[in-house]
Amino acid sequence: MSRPLYRQIYERMREDILAGRLSHGDRLPSIRQMTRDSGVSRTTVETAYEQLCADGLVNCVPQSGYYVNQLPRRRERVHTAEPQPQKPRYDFSGKYLDPTSFDFDIWRRLSRAVMQDSASFLGYGDCQGEYELRRQIARYLSAGRGVYASAENVVIGAGIQTLLSILCEMFDKSGRRIAFEDPGFQKGLRIFRDHNYEIVSVPGGASGIDIRALYESGANMLYISPSHSFPSGATLPLDKRLKLLEWAQSTGDGILFEDDYDGELRYTGKPLATLSSLDANGQVIYLGTFSKLLPPSIRISYAVLPDVLVPEYLRIAQRYNQTSSTMEQLTMARFIEEGRLEKQVRRLRRIYGRKNEAITRALDRQFGALATVRPNDTGLHLNVSLRISERADSLCARAEEHGLRIIPLSSYRTEGAESETADLYLSCAGIAEKDIEPAIRLLRELCS
Amino acid sequence: MSRPLYRQIYERMREDILAGRLSHGDRLPSIRQMTRDSGVSRTTVETAYEQLCADGLVNCVPQSGYYVNQLPRRRERVHTAEPQPQKPRYDFSGKYLDPTSFDFDIWRRLSRAVMQDSASFLGYGDCQGEYELRRQIARYLSAGRGVYASAENVVIGAGIQTLLSILCEMFDKSGRRIAFEDPGFQKGLRIFRDHNYEIVSVPGGASGIDIRALYESGANMLYISPSHSFPSGATLPLDKRLKLLEWAQSTGDGILFEDDYDGELRYTGKPLATLSSLDANGQVIYLGTFSKLLPPSIRISYAVLPDVLVPEYLRIAQRYNQTSSTMEQLTMARFIEEGRLEKQVRRLRRIYGRKNEAITRALDRQFGALATVRPNDTGLHLNVSLRISERADSLCARAEEHGLRIIPLSSYRTEGAESETADLYLSCAGIAEKDIEPAIRLLRELCS
Repeated sequence: MSRPLYRQIYERMREDILAGRLSHGDRLPSIRQMTRDSGVSRTTVETAYEQLCADGLVNCVPQSGYYVNQLPRRRERVHTAEPQPQKPRYDFSGKYLDPTSFDFDIWRRLSRAVMQDSASFLGYGDCQGEYELRRQIARYLSAGRGVYASAENVVIGAGIQTLLSILCEMFDKSGRRIAFEDPGFQKGLRIFRDHNYEIVSVPGGASGIDIRALYESGANMLYISPSHSFPSGATLPLDKRLKLLEWAQSTGDGILFEDDYDGELRYTGKPLATLSSLDANGQVIYLGTFSKLLPPSIRISYAVLPDVLVPEYLRIAQRYNQTSSTMEQLTMARFIEEGRLEKQVRRLRRIYGRKNEAITRALDRQFGALATVRPNDTGLHLNVSLRISERADSLCARAEEHGLRIIPLSSYRTEGAESETADLYLSCAGIAEKDIEPAIRLLRELCS
Repeated sequence: MSRPLYRQIYERMREDILAGRLSHGDRLPSIRQMTRDSGVSRTTVETAYEQLCADGLVNCVPQSGYYVNQLPRRRERVHTAEPQPQKPRYDFSGKYLDPTSFDFDIWRRLSRAVMQDSASFLGYGDCQGEYELRRQIARYLSAGRGVYASAENVVIGAGIQTLLSILCEMFDKSGRRIAFEDPGFQKGLRIFRDHNYEIVSVPGGASGIDIRALYESGANMLYISPSHSFPSGATLPLDKRLKLLEWAQSTGDGILFEDDYDGELRYTGKPLATLSSLDANGQVIYLGTFSKLLPPSIRISYAVLPDVLVPEYLRIAQRYNQTSSTMEQLTMARFIEEGRLEKQVRRLRRIYGRKNEAITRALDRQFGALATVRPNDTGLHLNVSLRISERADSLCARAEEHGLRIIPLSSYRTEGAESETADLYLSCAGIAEKDIEPAIRLLRELCS
């Protein structure tokens, strides 16, 4: 189909205006003149000019003619060049996955297979998540995490934040006060704040949450990662877990958000019982993610709700469209079904266990007694406290300039408590094994 | 790797408990007996039993033995069968895309190509959206919608709701009151309500927003779809658009959210200037989506911010992880780059123009003077008012039982105003052309 004549005239004039060949205040050729020059009908030219007026590019001044308008400011903007990717040489931020940690070929093969069935992709997707994936997650969790659920208890979204923003709407906010550990998971806290929850901080840190402070806080919700506290690294022992459940019961309708973001990645010893597996009263909402096991660009997180909360979730979730890509959800379902996820967890456990040891050794070699490292038996990150005179945030800013990305622990603090040491958060997910030694050596050089 | 012995014992016992072969109060074989029976070491058995305790499956009673705990209720749950897909025979809801409207092969080819480059998928993705896609969207909008922006103005998320939930945090909510048309886009309104905005309703409907009521409402934000009001179908003429911009200026720092969800799909006449193209003061946030042009399971929507709002957006967006799949974003970038999106728009314009005509004709044939239809020159849906005695919601509920899905207009109302007619919303996106006549005939039969 060729474009209609009026459209050709309209587009040529518009280009002249946008390119600056016609500028503010210029008069367009009169309709009569344009009709003569172009050999088209008067109506065609009028239609083109009306369209330019409708676009706001041109003004019609009665009895005088058509004049080019002042263009909105942003049209003058120069298109800038592609921003340089800011990937540093050495990355301990945990925002990237080291490419050797994941076999993309398997993922490609599975997504190709999944995409053959076009019929699965015609709608917005189940607001609770694709049934097939929920079923696989339920199976995976019963086998690996002692979380016993069926597909009906599982809900899926593109990241924990999206899930939280729906979960937030399930409760009467005015009667709720939620406790977060400090330092804690700021990206989660943010969602509760956006949704107008009252938030309190409870001391956390290396020794785990202060339960007496939790009681005193008056909170009736708690967000916590008992397997591996984020970012401070504590693992809660069983007796403290049971005390948390006791606390939830003592509040009546208290809710524990158990964020098990890297619970699979325990290197030594036995995995500990999740709060969810200990919960007999339907007070634990279990949160999990694949962002720590697979490349995080695959946006799938999940929550497991106790039976009593499922109907209310479904009522609320109708109001929100699913955010996670159906294609990725169905690929993930196959990935679990074929046993690939369990293999990937074992693979990462080996790699990360080795890397965490290498980081610990390198810190020891370079810093000796100046560094205290903890823990190295679980998860993707460890924390180090350096007894140096510089503050952690200033050290990390200087390191960034030298291509070394490390996050100061203070950036996860709700209240800006000062520390006597420079406390750093080091994730092993993104750094290649061979880079660990030179990266820590560089850190050492920057400290002297 | 074979599983350690303790693990084998642990898993066998756990299965016995979960399957109900051992139940609440049952005593496990003593450690001594188990050691003898299984021929493994005492430590191995102890480790397995400790793990069962840690899982909360078993209690250790000192001096007596190990007893099976009461299982949390949800473990007793029977895994239910896969829910039957609820896709009706005739679907006017617009929640699905008719498979003949999209060429999946092209999408498959492009995603395969994109996935070859593993390096793009290692991180969480740019919180603003992939640069490549933002650039292509900016180009597409300048060519097709008269929205002049560069990649820096474009932000991407998995659906309009996710974008709104970030945009909501850019403004001081306590000083904001946002107006929505009634009937209006409830899924958008919901997000502002979640984020504690004050919301006012302004009469909209077939004749377009009531501008006097807008002034009187005291609002300083407005959410509107001028190209094709959702769901009432009005198209705002240019003079009303200019009045909206005047209103925004009169409020000082007023913001217009222009949701152009199906602005591309105008069948006859000329596309009208978007508010964004007319805005010289940086007060319009333009919102667009691919959910109406491509299968909606592809979760990509975008906003175009005026220059003045970009820095604040970036500051806020750091707090949220990207929700849209990197793979789908990069595939979409190629899709636009190859000119596929423009072809798809032309294709849908033809198909939907034809379908909307067929729906109008069928309604006319079946209902005659009992039906008033409007409009049929734009967009994916039309509205019909039936002069019958039954209420729209009860009619639609009965239709659903007969495999005919139609949405009552009242489900988009903020305040439950009564109508004298049964007002229905009919989208042509999901219904096959050949099904239109029988579907409308079925509707007619249900009305008599």
